[in-house]
Amino acid sequence: MSERKSFAIGVDLGATTIKVGIIGKNGNIPDQLSVDSKANKGPKVVIQQIIFAVQELISRHKISECAGIGIGSPGVISNVDGTVQHPPNFADWTKVDLGKEIRKAFKLPVFIENDANCAAIAEARYGAGIEFKDFLFVIWGTGVGGGIILDRKIFHGPYGGAGEIGHISIDYNGRKCNCGNFGCIESYIGQRYLSQRTKEILSASLKDGTHSKIMDLVGGNLNKIDPAIISQAAEEDDPTAIEVLTEAGNLLGYALSSILNVIDLRVVVIGGGISAAPAFVYKAIISSIRERILKPHKEGVRVVRAKLGNNAGMVGAASLVL
Amino acid sequence: MSERKSFAIGVDLGATTIKVGIIGKNGNIPDQLSVDSKANKGPKVVIQQIIFAVQELISRHKISECAGIGIGSPGVISNVDGTVQHPPNFADWTKVDLGKEIRKAFKLPVFIENDANCAAIAEARYGAGIEFKDFLFVIWGTGVGGGIILDRKIFHGPYGGAGEIGHISIDYNGRKCNCGNFGCIESYIGQRYLSQRTKEILSASLKDGTHSKIMDLVGGNLNKIDPAIISQAAEEDDPTAIEVLTEAGNLLGYALSSILNVIDLRVVVIGGGISAAPAFVYKAIISSIRERILKPHKEGVRVVRAKLGNNAGMVGAASLVL
Repeated sequence: MSERKSFAIGVDLGATTIKVGIIGKNGNIPDQLSVDSKANKGPKVVIQQIIFAVQELISRHKISECAGIGIGSPGVISNVDGTVQHPPNFADWTKVDLGKEIRKAFKLPVFIENDANCAAIAEARYGAGIEFKDFLFVIWGTGVGGGIILDRKIFHGPYGGAGEIGHISIDYNGRKCNCGNFGCIESYIGQRYLSQRTKEILSASLKDGTHSKIMDLVGGNLNKIDPAIISQAAEEDDPTAIEVLTEAGNLLGYALSSILNVIDLRVVVIGGGISAAPAFVYKAIISSIRERILKPHKEGVRVVRAKLGNNAGMVGAASLVL
Repeated sequence: MSERKSFAIGVDLGATTIKVGIIGKNGNIPDQLSVDSKANKGPKVVIQQIIFAVQELISRHKISECAGIGIGSPGVISNVDGTVQHPPNFADWTKVDLGKEIRKAFKLPVFIENDANCAAIAEARYGAGIEFKDFLFVIWGTGVGGGIILDRKIFHGPYGGAGEIGHISIDYNGRKCNCGNFGCIESYIGQRYLSQRTKEILSASLKDGTHSKIMDLVGGNLNKIDPAIISQAAEEDDPTAIEVLTEAGNLLGYALSSILNVIDLRVVVIGGGISAAPAFVYKAIISSIRERILKPHKEGVRVVRAKLGNNAGMVGAASLVL
């Protein structure tokens, strides 16, 4: 960030919500707001929503103090022409020059980066990754995404799309993933699958009359099960919750072993909603990596929880403005 | 290579044979020889064999014209201390400073690099990779190895061990690999597995009295089946050979899709003994990648055959001397 300016604007573009924040030089967030993304209305409407949110936020602050706007966006950000390609769950969006559109609207520098990469950058600069020069960042939530940090910088790969770790297949004959491939780790441990798997186990055990803490937590409504509920039940020693999360941790460890073998990384930082899971899940991930990774790569394997929570994407986006 | 010197020595250290060559500035090989590696006798004996072979070769040429020695070695080459760690099939070899030992014996600069990386470098400079800035190099032979070329240079990863693509698992419940993991692609398509799989299919079909070209080629001895025989039979339209190689190509494609997704590479160069397989195997690899890779990564996917054959390792090792 420019020495003279006191803040940058970080935009976290999600399929449901656009979060916009004033980010200070230390990664602090003195002000933020969010608006509906209207992702089903097509790219023009989404761009209007971003512009509206940024205008609203800027109106509360001195624009002369703003160094620029950083945007974290889902999809592949081409490092040839900077376009945003195929963001999942955005209607009619094949290839859009988002940076150009936002630059037109504001007389400020605009930078754009993949959302998972933004979160990885934020963890590298201000979060759990500060002490590691190289690490794999994993976003474990609705889906599974990631970012590769090499020498404290994002590794983009030759075309800008590196880090798609949710689409490592752990079983070529496995379950069909939304991406069209089979056995992608995302289709085993993403939010929907975890909730579904828990429901299945509970439905079976309910027939036996077995009691579960999960049922208490959702007031008997199986459709209310989500990873936060499963985590809470696991903390209260519920066996189903522990089973589901341990299994997910093991599977994630298997996928990570393959990736760590290929890139020879040793440290994994896990963010996203499900990263709030209890410590035993991290133990499952680490032990399955240690069991499966190549012998010379075993030394120094670490798996740690991210620190910046939901704001990582916004903070990382703002920190692109340098 | 130094402007004044006319050649470098390339050493390709294998578990069976050490190949040593005089390599000219254009990657040409005016002279070469090979000796037994004696890998089962421990690192001291292996080092003596390398020294012996290099001395023998140098004695035939003007040492004053030699710019240095490059060594391609199996195992992980640490980029912290340059040691060679855990080369498979080398007895009593945990961690050896091979470069230092060879430097002691010759008053020449010595460079050391992983053998698969050496072959990748050779293909990048003189072979099938010349036209590509970034590609994944695959060695498909006894095992499956690889090297990652980014911006025409080897990507070592933070600890020097990147490129171990043989140990991408395609099935977490799959067959046990020598490395301890399950479902590694190497354990499905490595030389031994292909021969074994062919034998199994043939043994079953022989009972039905079905005739196979493979049986003619090995004179009825199933133990003589190897990938060269299978390739030859496939070229002569033998259905078993075609089945085995198509299946192997598909499986390799699945593993490559995962890797290409994570690193966002698009080009694959395939070397090693089995890369001599007929063109339909390449078609199987490409179509299984196109079927499985992420949509934004599909554009520009190419799979090509390496050009330098068995000498790639030696040539690439020599080209480290610059």
